[in-house]
Amino acid sequence: MTLLNTASERTDAQSAVTVIGLGEMGFALAGAFLDGGHPTTVWNRTPERADPLVARGAERSATVRDAVATSPLVVVSVKGNATARAVLESSGDALSGRSVLNLTDGTSAEARDVAEWVRGQGAQYLHGQIMTIAPGIGGAETVVFYGGSDAVFNHFHPTLQLIGGRGTLISADPGVPALYGMAVHGTMWGALNGFLHASALLSSEGIEVKRFLDDAGPSVAALLASFPMIAEEVDRGEYATPYGALQHHRPSLEDLIRESGDRNIDVEFPGYTLGLVNKAVEAGHANDSYSRLIEHFRKQ
Amino acid sequence: MTLLNTASERTDAQSAVTVIGLGEMGFALAGAFLDGGHPTTVWNRTPERADPLVARGAERSATVRDAVATSPLVVVSVKGNATARAVLESSGDALSGRSVLNLTDGTSAEARDVAEWVRGQGAQYLHGQIMTIAPGIGGAETVVFYGGSDAVFNHFHPTLQLIGGRGTLISADPGVPALYGMAVHGTMWGALNGFLHASALLSSEGIEVKRFLDDAGPSVAALLASFPMIAEEVDRGEYATPYGALQHHRPSLEDLIRESGDRNIDVEFPGYTLGLVNKAVEAGHANDSYSRLIEHFRKQ
Repeated sequence: MTLLNTASERTDAQSAVTVIGLGEMGFALAGAFLDGGHPTTVWNRTPERADPLVARGAERSATVRDAVATSPLVVVSVKGNATARAVLESSGDALSGRSVLNLTDGTSAEARDVAEWVRGQGAQYLHGQIMTIAPGIGGAETVVFYGGSDAVFNHFHPTLQLIGGRGTLISADPGVPALYGMAVHGTMWGALNGFLHASALLSSEGIEVKRFLDDAGPSVAALLASFPMIAEEVDRGEYATPYGALQHHRPSLEDLIRESGDRNIDVEFPGYTLGLVNKAVEAGHANDSYSRLIEHFRKQ
Repeated sequence: MTLLNTASERTDAQSAVTVIGLGEMGFALAGAFLDGGHPTTVWNRTPERADPLVARGAERSATVRDAVATSPLVVVSVKGNATARAVLESSGDALSGRSVLNLTDGTSAEARDVAEWVRGQGAQYLHGQIMTIAPGIGGAETVVFYGGSDAVFNHFHPTLQLIGGRGTLISADPGVPALYGMAVHGTMWGALNGFLHASALLSSEGIEVKRFLDDAGPSVAALLASFPMIAEEVDRGEYATPYGALQHHRPSLEDLIRESGDRNIDVEFPGYTLGLVNKAVEAGHANDSYSRLIEHFRKQ
């Protein structure tokens, strides 16, 4: 499919794309394919949702079966993989020989379930985890993690580029993109919670948080510099460290809790972390790196 | 003191420095001053802790009073500001006319308490929050947040550079460095907890965490890109957002909790975040940015 990479082919011989589901994300996807010059067919449970896309040149199908039958690539973006599978099931035998790109959020097991069923229909399957909100669709820096068929990823690569400029096939397993997305978002929620707690402290003193970021930007950015070291410790399962061991986190956490209490600010969030550290220290891991706490998270 | 910035002055006319407290950090500080060519006097509750420093040219004082009387700059690094104050009190009237740089960890109120007492003795006061562990002392990239006397900061600037190359005076208030340090560390603990929970998910699937970071590095780094926007929302007290509102975090958190449960991995940490989001949504903030959650942290 190298021909598709040439400018003339991309302009004149765009392959047809079907988009199933026109929520905020599906709507943005269909718009990106239209803007990229692809014949674009859309289906949505509430058909009028497609009106603005039809005005821009999209074809509206009355049934999922018709929508699927129109294009070699069927892109699915609905709420939940149970819905994704149910909608695809309603296309009867139309899926055979086509490629399905499922961009629906959910767990790894749910993605694998859809993949297994789609493959059973004689279709190829690729799952994508979009790492942006709808306005980011089509951005050169927009990341999409793909897992599944490398044939689909390679064949439709120019089309996938219209979703986000940083799309990578990370695994042959369609369940892995969801795990990658959760790993990024889970780190984000933890960091945001910590940052908002910190912002409560700073603003209680009348310090503008923006001013703090201007002053302390390098220190905040340096947080991420420790991640590769933590990753290596976790991968090796060896947590010994000569410096910055768990026991040294304890007094700093106690200071943070005392400061928060003095200011009538939440002590539960730093107290949670101190609890994890104390538990590990009491289990004999005082001289281990912070990475040792993964053992806590590994147990429900 | 511009003369001190010239190479010849820095080599030959270094001002004397006294270091009170030779824990891991104080020991590293005294070593850095010695390496920088400063006549260095040390005191420690356990005097033999100074032996290696004396072998490198340090003077050991038998009393705090003698140690303080030797140098215009007195650097304090002990366990807790109650100890810092008690140790300084034992110097009698020797503090008058000198400058105290207190590098002891603690709360903002504790730092202010020591500052007030030191100033009452006719001495100048600067507090420093060192943002590294002992082996980082002296590094060109090592950050120290200073608060207090700008006269001390400016006069002893070449000496302070020996502690860390990125020392900045962030406030005239000696309590602010502790808040900055807690804000950085609090963000760090949140991010690390999130990353370790994510690492538990990934490794349960047999995915190397280092491999994930190699693949998803830009997405993880992009987390920090949202901080200035969050900071501005917090500073303005306006949380409305057209995209990525709290209600859209809910299904992703529910996916993460379901995935964790499926893998027998901790659900408490993501469940905590979901609880915060649910509380804010139920309070009518479904369309607000994640920054709205600062209101939770502001209340104990």
